[in-house]
Amino acid sequence: MFDLSNISVVLVNTSHPGNIGATARAMKNMGLSKLVLVQPENFPSGVAVGRAVSATDILDAARVVETLQEAVADCGLVIGASARSRRIPWPMLSPQACAEKVIREKDTIRVALVFGREDSGLNNEELQLCHFHVQIPADENYPSLNLAAAVMVICYEVRKAALDRIGTAVRAEDEFWDQEKATGEQVEHFYTHLERVMVKIDFHDPENPRQLMQRMRRLFSRIRIDVMEMNILRGILTNIEFHIKDQDK
Amino acid sequence: MFDLSNISVVLVNTSHPGNIGATARAMKNMGLSKLVLVQPENFPSGVAVGRAVSATDILDAARVVETLQEAVADCGLVIGASARSRRIPWPMLSPQACAEKVIREKDTIRVALVFGREDSGLNNEELQLCHFHVQIPADENYPSLNLAAAVMVICYEVRKAALDRIGTAVRAEDEFWDQEKATGEQVEHFYTHLERVMVKIDFHDPENPRQLMQRMRRLFSRIRIDVMEMNILRGILTNIEFHIKDQDK
Repeated sequence: MFDLSNISVVLVNTSHPGNIGATARAMKNMGLSKLVLVQPENFPSGVAVGRAVSATDILDAARVVETLQEAVADCGLVIGASARSRRIPWPMLSPQACAEKVIREKDTIRVALVFGREDSGLNNEELQLCHFHVQIPADENYPSLNLAAAVMVICYEVRKAALDRIGTAVRAEDEFWDQEKATGEQVEHFYTHLERVMVKIDFHDPENPRQLMQRMRRLFSRIRIDVMEMNILRGILTNIEFHIKDQDK
Repeated sequence: MFDLSNISVVLVNTSHPGNIGATARAMKNMGLSKLVLVQPENFPSGVAVGRAVSATDILDAARVVETLQEAVADCGLVIGASARSRRIPWPMLSPQACAEKVIREKDTIRVALVFGREDSGLNNEELQLCHFHVQIPADENYPSLNLAAAVMVICYEVRKAALDRIGTAVRAEDEFWDQEKATGEQVEHFYTHLERVMVKIDFHDPENPRQLMQRMRRLFSRIRIDVMEMNILRGILTNIEFHIKDQDK
């Protein structure tokens, strides 16, 4: 469908192996596969395997390197996650703008998405190896995301941008409906039937309608009733009439 | 800046307390604060506290309840995370469309974002308590997200929609609705009443339900009934019962 194999996720100096495993899972959920680990504190690790669940293939294939420079050596676009604004402002992207850029460029160059340490992020030297920084718009009262949660958000935006590009991201509500929609004529017959029953049960007085039919129309217009639902509603009305007719005998 | 206090995150029957803690952190990162736990397997828990890091205030304030119905009783908009398509398709939203809807409506009604079990998600009965389902567009090779990762993505989209809105003066139609939306509890009473009447008019056999109530719930969930409409529908049901009782005399 689309190829995200030119996009790497690079984790720098990760402390907790659980975050490496959770990163692998988030990546595979979103269709990414290339993980690069710069000086991980504890890898390989059973904890990482446990959190990766069905994404252990990504852990097995992960490349472990000594420096960020080495990790991004073959990349033409490097974007680093940054939690805060820097003394020297760097070109800063929103996750969405980051993802759109990645998807625009990934067919011609290799791309690296770089994430720093759990406690302190990327240092200034590492941030300067990035062409752009990306910042997840977090609440000022607690802006520090878990590492794998940040990876999840960025990979999600990348997938969304990829889907948008091929025009399938937006799946309309109606697209997968199991029944055909009722026609305008069928719906009008329903309103006629409904009004008749409401009169019979003394709920509706056509001489003093008080917007009742208007409100019923507004109610049922808000959904696009399907054919089976229409049949059910008409069936209910018919059974009500049948029971009331019995009474009149 | 903006108020997200009308939005709850509801976790149903969570197995791993780490996911509860990670959910609290994701929520606080994105500016949400209300957590509701339906029958958590292990709570309170030191593991949850550890993963929440600086979001333990959210764990301390979490409401623990016995059923999803209880959790959403005061909510006028309930959206459930669904991993797969159902036999009877339900109105399905993308995370972005979900977030936009939540932000449009959260000033007038309470909103619940509902997430199911780690291994099996929400069951059919729980999904039918939701007005809409939301699905994160995951890769078909591994579509199962970690619970807290899914919460992260949805809360991120909610925050993004809230931020977007500050920059936009375009107000949706829903905002100017003349009536309040019915609460979850009112709608449940309506379903009970509807089912009773359908049995009385011999339209519905609880021994052989053939998905009838499911289809009725799907129909009325799409409408998002307001309070006056609810009164009208209940009035109709009451008059039908009255006429049928007459007959039985």
